Amino acid sequence: MNIIDRLYKSIEEKGVVCLGLDTSIEYVPEYIMETSKNEVDAIFNFNKEIIDETLDVAACYKVQIAYYEALGLKGLDAYKRTLEYLREKNAIIIADIKRGDIAATAKMYAKAHFEGDFEADFITLSPYMGMDSIEPYLPYMKDGKKGVFSLVRTSNPGANDIEFLDTTKGHKVYHEVGDRLCNIGNDYLGESGYSQIGGVLGCTHKEEAKELRERFKNMFFLIPGYGAQGGRAEDVAMYLNNGNGGVVNSSRKILLAYKEGNGNERVGYYARLEAIRMRDEIREAVSNKF
Amino acid sequence: MNIIDRLYKSIEEKGVVCLGLDTSIEYVPEYIMETSKNEVDAIFNFNKEIIDETLDVAACYKVQIAYYEALGLKGLDAYKRTLEYLREKNAIIIADIKRGDIAATAKMYAKAHFEGDFEADFITLSPYMGMDSIEPYLPYMKDGKKGVFSLVRTSNPGANDIEFLDTTKGHKVYHEVGDRLCNIGNDYLGESGYSQIGGVLGCTHKEEAKELRERFKNMFFLIPGYGAQGGRAEDVAMYLNNGNGGVVNSSRKILLAYKEGNGNERVGYYARLEAIRMRDEIREAVSNKF
Repeated sequence: MNIIDRLYKSIEEKGVVCLGLDTSIEYVPEYIMETSKNEVDAIFNFNKEIIDETLDVAACYKVQIAYYEALGLKGLDAYKRTLEYLREKNAIIIADIKRGDIAATAKMYAKAHFEGDFEADFITLSPYMGMDSIEPYLPYMKDGKKGVFSLVRTSNPGANDIEFLDTTKGHKVYHEVGDRLCNIGNDYLGESGYSQIGGVLGCTHKEEAKELRERFKNMFFLIPGYGAQGGRAEDVAMYLNNGNGGVVNSSRKILLAYKEGNGNERVGYYARLEAIRMRDEIREAVSNKF
Repeated sequence: MNIIDRLYKSIEEKGVVCLGLDTSIEYVPEYIMETSKNEVDAIFNFNKEIIDETLDVAACYKVQIAYYEALGLKGLDAYKRTLEYLREKNAIIIADIKRGDIAATAKMYAKAHFEGDFEADFITLSPYMGMDSIEPYLPYMKDGKKGVFSLVRTSNPGANDIEFLDTTKGHKVYHEVGDRLCNIGNDYLGESGYSQIGGVLGCTHKEEAKELRERFKNMFFLIPGYGAQGGRAEDVAMYLNNGNGGVVNSSRKILLAYKEGNGNERVGYYARLEAIRMRDEIREAVSNKF
C-alpha cells in the first residue's frame, strides 16, 4: 500500500495524533533512569514505554532528530534504536530532520534517512533552495514506499520574515512553495487522493486554514503547534477534510503528561491518556465543524 | 580572537580555499582501503591524508555531514573523528549541516554542533522559517567563539523557485534574507569588519556579484559552486574585497585530484596541488580585477 494511504488509513483507525518523540534527557523520570544502563538507554526506554502504550491511539510518530543529535553519537544511537523499535511495531515514522540541500548532497540525505540505520517512512524537508531540493528524494517515492513533508507555512513569529512575504505574483512566498509542491505531488498520488509530497503547516492561524485546505488539494498536512505551542482543536479541525488529510503533532504535552498525573511514574500510561484526550478533542471539533 | 577574524587572518595567510570534505566511500583509493580496518576507518584516513597535506594552503575545511550520515552511525563516527582531527590541528571547521528550525529544536542543534562530539567553528543554516531560526545560535556567538553561514542566494537552477522571487518590497526574497542577516549581524562584528553571521552565496552569477558585495557589507561569504560545479575564478573574484571577506569551497575537484595525477595514489599530494592551483588562480583573478 502507498505510504500516504497507509497514513490515511491509520488516521481513520486511530485518529489524527502524531506523537512527537522530541525526547530530552531531562524528561526522563527517576524510575526509568534507575532501571537503565545509561542516559542513552534511559531515553530509549522512555520512548519505548510511550510507544508501547500508544500504538493504537497514535496515527504515527514524529521523531525530532535534533534532540538526539545534541547528545552526539550516543544520542544518535538512541535515535537509531527508537526508529528500529517503531519499525518492529509496524508504526509509521516521520523523521523530523528538515533537510534542505541539492544534488549529490541531497541524495546522501535520502540514503541516510530512507535506508539503513535511520530509515523512516517520511522525512521533513526545507524548500528554500527550490524544487531541486525535493527531486533527489523522488526515486524513493516511485514505488510508493516513502514520502516527504516539506515546510510550507509555519506558525512561529519569524514566519513573517520570508514565508509571508508578498510576491509580485500576487501571492505569498509560502503559496508559491505549496503550489509547486502540489504540482510535483500530482505524480505521487495515493488512492486516498493525497500525495506522498506533504506539507508542514502550523496550526495557529485559523483564518487561513480554509483557504489553504482548498488551495493545496492533494497535500497531506503535518500540523505542528498544537498543545504546548498554543494551537487549539478548533483551529486544527479547519485543516482537515472530515478529520483526515492531516496529522496533528504533539510532543511535550504528551511526553510530560505524567507530571500532571501522579508526578513521577507511569510515563506511558499518562502519555496514552493525553493522546486519547487530544484525539477526542479534535474529533469533537471536527464534528462541530460540520 | 573572534572566529570571523580568525577566518579573515587565515585567508590572508593561506588564500581563499575552503576545502570541502564531502567524502564518499567511492572516492577512497585501493591503497588507503588496504591499510584501513574498515570503510569508516578508510574515510577517516582519506580525510587525514588530505588534511595533513593542505593545512597551510586551505583557509578552512567544510565538512558535509550528509556524506557521513548516509553511512549511518558508523559514518557519523568518521565525521566525529574528522572533526576531532581538524580541531587537534587547529584548523577552522565549517560544518555544512544546513539546519533550519526554531526554539527548543534549534537550541538542540546548537548544542549538537557547537559542543561535544560534533563541535565545529561555523555551521551552515537554512533561513526559510525566518530570523527566529537564527536566534538560538546567537548565545554561542556572544563571546566571539562561533559563527554561522546562512543560505542566502544559491546557484542551482531551483534557486529561481523561491530565492529569486520578486517581492512587493521591490527586491527579491534573497535580498530580504541577506538584509535581515546583515542587520542582526551588526551585533556580531569582528575587528575585520565582518560579522559572525555569514551567508552562502553561490558563485555562478557573476553579474550580480558586485551588487551583492556592496549590499551585504558586513557579510562574510561562503561561496560554493567553484570547480566541479562550474564556477570560474573571475566570477569568484567579484565576491571578494581585495581577496578576502569570502571563502571559496571546492570539494570533489580537490578530493579526486589524484585521479588526474598518476591514477590511484598519493591522494594528499594531488589534493595539495589542486588547492594551490585554485588558490593561485583566484589570487590572479583578484589582481586582474583591480
